[in-house]
Amino acid sequence: MAQNIYDDATFFAGYSQLPRQVHGLAAAPEWPALRAMLPDLTGKRIVDLGCGFGWFARWAREHGAASVLGLDISDNMIGRARATTQDQAIEYRMADLDAFDLPEMSFELAYSSLAFHYIEDFARLVRTVHRALVPGGHFVFSIEHPIYMAAKQPGWMTHEQGHRTWPVDHYASEGERHTDWIASGVLKFHRTLGTTVNTLIDTGFVLRHLEEFAPTREQVAQCPELVEEMDRPLMLLMAAQRNGTYES
Amino acid sequence: MAQNIYDDATFFAGYSQLPRQVHGLAAAPEWPALRAMLPDLTGKRIVDLGCGFGWFARWAREHGAASVLGLDISDNMIGRARATTQDQAIEYRMADLDAFDLPEMSFELAYSSLAFHYIEDFARLVRTVHRALVPGGHFVFSIEHPIYMAAKQPGWMTHEQGHRTWPVDHYASEGERHTDWIASGVLKFHRTLGTTVNTLIDTGFVLRHLEEFAPTREQVAQCPELVEEMDRPLMLLMAAQRNGTYES
Repeated sequence: MAQNIYDDATFFAGYSQLPRQVHGLAAAPEWPALRAMLPDLTGKRIVDLGCGFGWFARWAREHGAASVLGLDISDNMIGRARATTQDQAIEYRMADLDAFDLPEMSFELAYSSLAFHYIEDFARLVRTVHRALVPGGHFVFSIEHPIYMAAKQPGWMTHEQGHRTWPVDHYASEGERHTDWIASGVLKFHRTLGTTVNTLIDTGFVLRHLEEFAPTREQVAQCPELVEEMDRPLMLLMAAQRNGTYES
Repeated sequence: MAQNIYDDATFFAGYSQLPRQVHGLAAAPEWPALRAMLPDLTGKRIVDLGCGFGWFARWAREHGAASVLGLDISDNMIGRARATTQDQAIEYRMADLDAFDLPEMSFELAYSSLAFHYIEDFARLVRTVHRALVPGGHFVFSIEHPIYMAAKQPGWMTHEQGHRTWPVDHYASEGERHTDWIASGVLKFHRTLGTTVNTLIDTGFVLRHLEEFAPTREQVAQCPELVEEMDRPLMLLMAAQRNGTYES
């Protein structure tokens, strides 16, 4: 079972203040890149894995989606998400992505933003999503990049030549990583990029795009601290498609 | 044009002493993993991009390949490779992989070991390989991993907590990297993993497998210094297939 740090009061209070939680998708620097990887949403039934406050669900409905099912492990999140919409085509449900199930061939798009690094059994999750998608259905998600997650002690170092550098070690040692982010002892699961890609392929997905998010020049001009993402990627964005010729 | 460091006398002398040049494929720790990504070679026409001394070409012929065309930028390499075989179905030719051409739909497998990080125009190379393969044809290669190549000053660092760590910086800044390996000033070209993957996909390849080589327990027992590869990957192995239903 995934750790539910989101229902820890301290964590939730801090998390709720993050720009992307207050201001939504537009405050997430990777959103334009992730959005560009989405198919046309018109008429699509969407499942959002780790939906948080429901920013994506509402956006998707404004952009033609037929329906959105938002899943999240956090009672707090689901409560807040439900309070933000009257839309009958959006449904929110509590679910542990390490143990959830979905009806077969019921969605044209599975979407997830920065949730899968909390999941221990990624292969199970990918099988569940594969079954839940129609043939040709899309799977678009972001996840913390393994370069960012691998190290025993992640965090900037100063090279003896004076420049900022990011440590990578224990890269091939997959599994638990404990970090302090908003609250202490947040539990994440590191997987190599190879494992993430091969799990998709071996389950029957065709990889469409893989992006290691780096900011544009304009984004750095507006938000100078984003320049760090040029030195090492924090986020990995992926688009895949369920095998099959049916294009919904 | 790619730098031809291999015809530098000092470099060539040092390079020729590497275990994998003296003892062949069996001395390359990643070989079992790369071999497992190859299709059945029976009857296949193969092109080997950066063939070096021809170890793979000879092995492929022993394993059923119909023919092997080995390309290399180095006169020294090609000379040595030609001297090691009488096999009429193996041909060696000098070629700069930044400017070469191949006949259309003439190969069932394109193979390359640790050559593409010397290539500036990877997109051109991938288009050339795509055209040269029959539909359904395989493309299997290894390349230095971008985690290994990215940093301004690659090389192990000691974390303040005492453990070995590898620096990653300038990851999103693709292009030239100058390193000292055997000789000084070896010119390589860093590309993100995303660029390598997307170039294949956008050219019409389907990604089949992506492996960030890490040694097995047995390999580390036999060769303890390989344990470093658990901390950060040095090599990226990839298998892709030209779109199309024809299976040769």
